Amino acid sequence: MTSIYDSELDRNEANYQPLTPITFLQRAASVFPEHVAIIYGDKSICYADFFSRCRQLASVLADRGIGRGDTVSVMLANTPAMLEVHYAVPMCGGVLHSLNTRLDAGVIAFQLEHAESKVLITDTAFSKTVKTALELANVQPWLIDYADPVCSQAGERLSDHDYEVLVDSGDVDFKWLMPLDEWDAISVNYTSGTTGDPKGVVYHHRGAYLLAQGNVVTTSIQKHAVYLWTLPMFHCNGWCFPWTISAVSGTHVCLREVRAEAIWASLDDHAVTHLCGAPVVMSTILGVEEKYKRTFPQTVHFFTAAAPPPESILSQMREVGFVVTHLYGLTEVYGPAVVNDWNEDWNLLSEAEQAQLKARQGVRYHALEELDVLDPESMTAVPRDGKTLGEVMFRGNVVMKGYLKNKQATADAFKNGWFHSGDLGVIYQDGYIQLKDRSKDIIISGGENISSIEIEEVLYKHPEILAAVVVAMPDPKWGETPCAFVELVAGAEVSDSDLVAWCSDHLASYKVPRNFVFESIAKTSTGKVQKFELRARAKKLTT
Amino acid sequence: MTSIYDSELDRNEANYQPLTPITFLQRAASVFPEHVAIIYGDKSICYADFFSRCRQLASVLADRGIGRGDTVSVMLANTPAMLEVHYAVPMCGGVLHSLNTRLDAGVIAFQLEHAESKVLITDTAFSKTVKTALELANVQPWLIDYADPVCSQAGERLSDHDYEVLVDSGDVDFKWLMPLDEWDAISVNYTSGTTGDPKGVVYHHRGAYLLAQGNVVTTSIQKHAVYLWTLPMFHCNGWCFPWTISAVSGTHVCLREVRAEAIWASLDDHAVTHLCGAPVVMSTILGVEEKYKRTFPQTVHFFTAAAPPPESILSQMREVGFVVTHLYGLTEVYGPAVVNDWNEDWNLLSEAEQAQLKARQGVRYHALEELDVLDPESMTAVPRDGKTLGEVMFRGNVVMKGYLKNKQATADAFKNGWFHSGDLGVIYQDGYIQLKDRSKDIIISGGENISSIEIEEVLYKHPEILAAVVVAMPDPKWGETPCAFVELVAGAEVSDSDLVAWCSDHLASYKVPRNFVFESIAKTSTGKVQKFELRARAKKLTT
Repeated sequence: MTSIYDSELDRNEANYQPLTPITFLQRAASVFPEHVAIIYGDKSICYADFFSRCRQLASVLADRGIGRGDTVSVMLANTPAMLEVHYAVPMCGGVLHSLNTRLDAGVIAFQLEHAESKVLITDTAFSKTVKTALELANVQPWLIDYADPVCSQAGERLSDHDYEVLVDSGDVDFKWLMPLDEWDAISVNYTSGTTGDPKGVVYHHRGAYLLAQGNVVTTSIQKHAVYLWTLPMFHCNGWCFPWTISAVSGTHVCLREVRAEAIWASLDDHAVTHLCGAPVVMSTILGVEEKYKRTFPQTVHFFTAAAPPPESILSQMREVGFVVTHLYGLTEVYGPAVVNDWNEDWNLLSEAEQAQLKARQGVRYHALEELDVLDPESMTAVPRDGKTLGEVMFRGNVVMKGYLKNKQATADAFKNGWFHSGDLGVIYQDGYIQLKDRSKDIIISGGENISSIEIEEVLYKHPEILAAVVVAMPDPKWGETPCAFVELVAGAEVSDSDLVAWCSDHLASYKVPRNFVFESIAKTSTGKVQKFELRARAKKLTT
Repeated sequence: MTSIYDSELDRNEANYQPLTPITFLQRAASVFPEHVAIIYGDKSICYADFFSRCRQLASVLADRGIGRGDTVSVMLANTPAMLEVHYAVPMCGGVLHSLNTRLDAGVIAFQLEHAESKVLITDTAFSKTVKTALELANVQPWLIDYADPVCSQAGERLSDHDYEVLVDSGDVDFKWLMPLDEWDAISVNYTSGTTGDPKGVVYHHRGAYLLAQGNVVTTSIQKHAVYLWTLPMFHCNGWCFPWTISAVSGTHVCLREVRAEAIWASLDDHAVTHLCGAPVVMSTILGVEEKYKRTFPQTVHFFTAAAPPPESILSQMREVGFVVTHLYGLTEVYGPAVVNDWNEDWNLLSEAEQAQLKARQGVRYHALEELDVLDPESMTAVPRDGKTLGEVMFRGNVVMKGYLKNKQATADAFKNGWFHSGDLGVIYQDGYIQLKDRSKDIIISGGENISSIEIEEVLYKHPEILAAVVVAMPDPKWGETPCAFVELVAGAEVSDSDLVAWCSDHLASYKVPRNFVFESIAKTSTGKVQKFELRARAKKLTT
């Protein structure tokens, strides 16, 4: 039945515009043109120039024929160029595809081909891997080299197109495109996944706008915040912070590498207020030589995810002036969509109790409409007892569009109207969730997801290996590293170092197992390996 | 042309939910159930109870047959009930219609009839007017009486239905309704207008969500902010703050009347951090007897609109611990959609220069996509010279759906894809706009446009003048000339000729008022002067 409110009150240009984070930059450049947007080494870029440079790059891409729905791939470190592509690519209608800079050539080739890349902007530091990837891939993106203007890199140039030269040649008055629909894709990020090929997680303008603002609303980030880039921007578009910081007219401080001295210097020199990273980044910060430590008057907010922050780290962080907030999410939900929203009463508890509470992943972001732990069979919520295991599920506006060109995986992920995270967890009486088994085959090393199955596949290809099982082994520095249980063919003689060499030839170095156990691998009657048993044993191997 | 991102990546329940501010309350109640949501006198209501009470009321309305698109009218002061209806009404699918409590019976009758009210919740204090209105109106809403539980009111009850009894009888587990579409109406607010019947401005869930968050993002409101209700909630849904404060899990402090002693006591007793109001509220605060003044450690943010804050008021507010931010908007843009976003460099300027900058209305909210000053004929932007007059126009997601049952007025308002505010202004080189007049308030004398605001500003600078309003007076020779209504400070003695001399010193001679009327100037409940009434009187003064 229609009501009086349903007629003659339609959408029009005046009262409806697609949500897009591009407007955050446009506003910051208009209102605070002289405010420093980006600091990188001794260079700084104000908002007026940041916006101009993005429009220039967008015009160059548009001139090259890049338009709505075209993929622009980037292989970039946390440099100003990486921030610029977050705006320039959608400004010409393109879709940003950020490559994990540590990937091996084979995976890069797969992604470029799958995403049908039209352009590849690559830091010269990664030219060797990229060159190999391009030889493997059946796609020929237009190449642009980025030569880091601050930390000069050794790698060769792959093209005649220099990023800075192109930007300079662009049109500062370029009429950038609003999305036609806020549901239009803004970026694609590939997950390593546990089985099969990587999946391309597609984000849209609406979700990017809402999560970027969600970071502000959910964590109370203030106008002119100063954000230090210790989280890789290729990871879920840097949890949408490339867009969030424009929304608060803040300052990005870029760091090419996560080094403790540089972090401490930045905190002090640039009055940093916020940074993000896996717990390993906190360990790095705390592990610095005493002489590099600085003191600073501001409170520094550290947002951590990927693994619960350990108690000792929390108390040390507090001592040196940080407030640590625990976030949780997945690539499929734009990075963080869950926050351990701290209750002030909890400050009265002991440090151990506080750490226990802080280890919980928490509650939904404002921009996520529903979060629950469900029985994946019955789709009913598990009891809020902090004990009953179920699957963590999401529903709302910061859940991906789906997986690119992968109808089945998309359908599986959205079965029964919820996004199935694959993470197992519990929910407490107060509605806070806690993960218990982060989808059991994934190894999280230094904040990066490593698929155990990918390593197993490499091992299986070795002619002397009969069976291989890879599980996570706790590691004091990286959180976890891969540990391989290997069964050799009869009579074979293979050493640890042989397998390290083999894996290094086929895998990114961070994926190479740190430990090998040679033994006959037990299987169940149905031929399955009991990974949890091996995981328990690997835990004991840690020294 | 479709791209790979256009297929098999559609909306579904998991990745798309309508935006609605109801979810802010649901989240606050879930995450901070014990946190105080509302303080009123000696009563306080925590978030768990606030949410329960809203669901209870929603269930009562639903039981009565109220559903999607039904109008629920309220005649309420700034009491807890007024906050509750902001959630309970949309929770059952209804549309909230807030009546200005100072309206006369005739206008109320018109609104009830035009909005086809199904329910009327009325504070007993207003029963006399409401009773008359109901006699006049050809509509019979279900009546609910609200008897203020803190400040008991004299008026009679109009029905057998008591608000508190009904809430108590409701279902705390009521399955409240999400909107079917975020474009669904959430409220209707009638503008007084200057000619013809009042127009019903319709808001939708999407805009209410975005402006409520916009208040947070644009003005950096922190988690657990404490908000004092000095702005009437019947005015543009209290600029969306009934929803904003839930988004930050903050505390509402209700005040039935805007009295200086109560404001000062609340600031101190409840550690208030934010309040809103017209400049007259600041005058009220500053005009308190010295014995009622308090000191408090927190910074208090005062958001003002309706008229530029005068320099003397600004400096006095600063002295007693307030930070004043100037906002601007209209009912048609959900209240404030423009902010005088302060540039820190401006703090180095003199107080007079700062006041001049602060008098500008400013720049767009994040939630408003475009704001500009256009020539309404050619629809081109006026030069950014701070001088050329044009019409202030808005475009974006916090612009109303349109006027209820008024196709022509809606079409006029949205002509050429912009919302035409009817306000005349200029835009400066830095993109900040400043109002110069309502288009109908402009005085056209001998073919020259004269801004009534410019003359008022000159009069306000006169030390003996408390308030001044300038309107057009018909003139046989010039067409129109300015006529000034002037209220002097107590005991002052100023003559016509004194003021002519004063104005001549500061204005071009054709702008000097030809007529002065000395009297106390009446203001509406929202602190606005009804210029059309003075214009009507000025017309009669013509000889």
